[in-house]
Amino acid sequence: MDGMLHGLMQDWPLRIHTIIDHAAAQHGARKVVSRSVEGPIVETDYAAIRTRSLRLAKRLAREGVRPGDRIATLAWNTARHLECWYGITGMGAVYHTVNPRLFEDQIAYIVDHAQDRMMFLDLGFVPLVEKLAPRLPSIERYVILTDAAHMPNTSLPGAVPYEEYLAEADADFAWLAVEEGAAAGLCYTSGTTGEPKGVLYSHRSNVLHALMARAPDALGLSARDVAMPVVPLFHANGWSFGFSAPMTGASLVLPGPKLDGASLAELLTRFRVTISAAVPTVWFGLLQHLEASGTMLPDLQRVVIGGSACPRAVTRTFRDVYGVEVLHAWGMTELSPLGTVCSLKPDYGELDAEAWLDVKERAGQSFYGVEMRIVDDAGAEQPWDGKTSGRLQVRGPAVARAYFRREDEPILTGDGFFDTGDVATIDRFGNMQVVDRAKDVIKSGGEWISSIDLENAAVSHPDVAEAAAIGVPHPKWDERPLLVVVPKPGREPDKAAILAHLAQRFAKWQVPDDVVFVEEIPHTATGKISKVELRRRIVPPVAE
Amino acid sequence: MDGMLHGLMQDWPLRIHTIIDHAAAQHGARKVVSRSVEGPIVETDYAAIRTRSLRLAKRLAREGVRPGDRIATLAWNTARHLECWYGITGMGAVYHTVNPRLFEDQIAYIVDHAQDRMMFLDLGFVPLVEKLAPRLPSIERYVILTDAAHMPNTSLPGAVPYEEYLAEADADFAWLAVEEGAAAGLCYTSGTTGEPKGVLYSHRSNVLHALMARAPDALGLSARDVAMPVVPLFHANGWSFGFSAPMTGASLVLPGPKLDGASLAELLTRFRVTISAAVPTVWFGLLQHLEASGTMLPDLQRVVIGGSACPRAVTRTFRDVYGVEVLHAWGMTELSPLGTVCSLKPDYGELDAEAWLDVKERAGQSFYGVEMRIVDDAGAEQPWDGKTSGRLQVRGPAVARAYFRREDEPILTGDGFFDTGDVATIDRFGNMQVVDRAKDVIKSGGEWISSIDLENAAVSHPDVAEAAAIGVPHPKWDERPLLVVVPKPGREPDKAAILAHLAQRFAKWQVPDDVVFVEEIPHTATGKISKVELRRRIVPPVAE
Repeated sequence: MDGMLHGLMQDWPLRIHTIIDHAAAQHGARKVVSRSVEGPIVETDYAAIRTRSLRLAKRLAREGVRPGDRIATLAWNTARHLECWYGITGMGAVYHTVNPRLFEDQIAYIVDHAQDRMMFLDLGFVPLVEKLAPRLPSIERYVILTDAAHMPNTSLPGAVPYEEYLAEADADFAWLAVEEGAAAGLCYTSGTTGEPKGVLYSHRSNVLHALMARAPDALGLSARDVAMPVVPLFHANGWSFGFSAPMTGASLVLPGPKLDGASLAELLTRFRVTISAAVPTVWFGLLQHLEASGTMLPDLQRVVIGGSACPRAVTRTFRDVYGVEVLHAWGMTELSPLGTVCSLKPDYGELDAEAWLDVKERAGQSFYGVEMRIVDDAGAEQPWDGKTSGRLQVRGPAVARAYFRREDEPILTGDGFFDTGDVATIDRFGNMQVVDRAKDVIKSGGEWISSIDLENAAVSHPDVAEAAAIGVPHPKWDERPLLVVVPKPGREPDKAAILAHLAQRFAKWQVPDDVVFVEEIPHTATGKISKVELRRRIVPPVAE
Repeated sequence: MDGMLHGLMQDWPLRIHTIIDHAAAQHGARKVVSRSVEGPIVETDYAAIRTRSLRLAKRLAREGVRPGDRIATLAWNTARHLECWYGITGMGAVYHTVNPRLFEDQIAYIVDHAQDRMMFLDLGFVPLVEKLAPRLPSIERYVILTDAAHMPNTSLPGAVPYEEYLAEADADFAWLAVEEGAAAGLCYTSGTTGEPKGVLYSHRSNVLHALMARAPDALGLSARDVAMPVVPLFHANGWSFGFSAPMTGASLVLPGPKLDGASLAELLTRFRVTISAAVPTVWFGLLQHLEASGTMLPDLQRVVIGGSACPRAVTRTFRDVYGVEVLHAWGMTELSPLGTVCSLKPDYGELDAEAWLDVKERAGQSFYGVEMRIVDDAGAEQPWDGKTSGRLQVRGPAVARAYFRREDEPILTGDGFFDTGDVATIDRFGNMQVVDRAKDVIKSGGEWISSIDLENAAVSHPDVAEAAAIGVPHPKWDERPLLVVVPKPGREPDKAAILAHLAQRFAKWQVPDDVVFVEEIPHTATGKISKVELRRRIVPPVAE
């Protein structure tokens, strides 16, 4: 806009180093506790993390790493991993978190696709990477996140213990003054189909996301919190804790490689953790351990649960037994990653114990900086009535607009929304609920049937171990639901009884036309039902 | 930077309309209560404010208002005033809040300097503006913030009641897509010397400031809060409440023109306000009323106090009698305006009742987005030890870099810091305390003596009504302190006794060399001691 009247405020780009600078200045002595990969629990603070990040930045610059270069990390949540994020971005390079839980082929693919020049990896991943190294030609040097005393013999090119590498530089370094739109982080999504796709975060998007997601009604982090992100830094940008905790001065407790109930309970109680975050399976393990050991959690106030829907029983147990509020959250790697958090909006007024659980089953409201809508297949906005479902689309400064090295493949609608691939309802208070993945929803006679709802209802039948609902082609209705069931050991469920069980909860047109019994349902690498594979295996029996 | 690797996140500029859009979508039914200038208490909500802002934006565009044009508001805190902010900025123009408490000459100066094209004013200011109108040639049209029924007869050019003006447009308007660096707001500071200077906020700075200042450890606003900013929208950008409350979904209670204790108490209790904000004099009035009427405040949790230091007795009474936490805050128009908030950092550990008050007397820590340092006259950084004082300098995305139409007068240091003109200490936990204005600090033998400290000590003497300390030139020590005292009615204080009183609290070299008794100390328009005028009046008696 020519001749625009510009504001006269300072040019202060939203660079990631400003976060650790603030933490060191205002919260320098705040503890950062790690369960190290070597074993012991170690403590540091934000001032030390900043100093070491500066040294790493300087060392990387001396190595010849250039702004924009990608540097892989393959590591659990520890202070060293966090230092890598700040050191790498502080000299203009891009941290690329690699998920060690992916298939080896996928790891080889994404490291090669990203053209990572170096890799920082935990001790425990050395054998895996030694095997993969011949397929990672872009990696010029490996740095093992340990000290000289724990350094293994390894064939990895240029391998050096992290502490020695750091010791080769001092902290006399000026953070590189990149533009705030510069790339800062890279994380690949592992879709159920196709190759993994890289989301390329910018300094601006990571800083804004942390500012937005730490809002009192979202993560609500404060300097009085002790935050334990169990969700790995390599999973969906670590749910922003690596940025939002130091930005706010919250203490951090990082669980390293041990995510079992007993190990987590030890950290929660010993370091008086007030807020934690993880996927549901982690909480199953913790709650089992707590019950078996009789451990209580007097300091824990909130747990953020995302990744998949959180069972009502978990939310109830946390509330009734441990006095902990579950914050159901929803997000995606493409959203940096948080989109909604289910803190209790005042609109609901006073709720009894069960009604409160009803609300808490939903995925929550979007915070400022995430625009959200649901649309039908024609793109028409659907009402926020808690019943009508539609494709969930989002827009905001921390939402992806394209994938790395696929910049010419459009992923936004004409008006700039990202289609999440989820199907959701939104109630009149703005509280969202994912009802299915768009590709799994069953479209019958112009109406949508949630495969997830059918599966949840089916597994509540006493004879059913696991269930999957898929749509099979139908000449009149377009698709009709088919239920695939793995019986519980020793049970021989009756097809009619299962359908009758479903008929109690669904309209007649929503009830599957048939049930197929199988010994096993195929799963993806991340433990989700692979409906692509399932459709390949099951011959449609009802669509002739 | 050529060849820079850009992040692949969405282009979503930080425009002010995104705040009211979010509030309408996620908190649309949240109440906004105003004590109207006409008298009655009226209620609306964020959805309605957004709709009316869109209508105002459309109406302004039809009027011929262009992006970047300045539009004055001269109004108390009401929903209509808030609509003006969103309507004006939503079509690319700039709201210019005019402080009705300024001298008439100052008002005429700033409206002319800003070249405001229109003015939106409250009913009560019509007589004032009628008198000033001949000196406001840039104003083409006046809109009176009332409805047709309350419209006065007025000579103001083009005068129209706001409700009629709004009714001439519908809400079918697309917010103007300005760049985030575009000017959005204008507020003049009334310095004690020279002409008022205009701070020109951008969309980006206002949005970022709200994001930063609503942090849990600063304003801590949530959707469950009911916020009553008593601080006027025309004072220092309204301490951000006009942005941070709708951004977070906090309900708003706007007190209109009535800021007396009884009127505020009525709003606090009736609308269950949880957080309020004002200068100390407002709280004196409220506490007096509460005590006299026996009113309690069961819902109020926090009061933000800024503008000048908050007396310990006020903080204590709020805590001990009403269970309310005082959040001492410091800021300036040039900072958008908040810089620090004194919430309790965990570093202090457990504090007894008096030690807690000691901490609460300080101005607080800077939140993320405000870099803060103290320097000596040579620009060297001073230690954060709670004792060493220095000039307070700040840097950040919501800090001014120049004044409006004085763009060529540099106001930043070489490394981009804004010198606040305050002298402060910072303790080892980052908690700042203003000890003086830089121009009032007394420099004796290379050491700095706080005039404010001397004044506070002097007025604690039973015979002293008011006191001012100024530096007078001295051939050996550069400056020496002189105390100017207004005796209490009927008292005849003794010079030696007053100096002895001070000698109990200050080192010998800090005690003034002399005391001068006067009948009156000169004040500025905003009620502060005018040391410029005082120095003019007092003939230096000790420096020969």
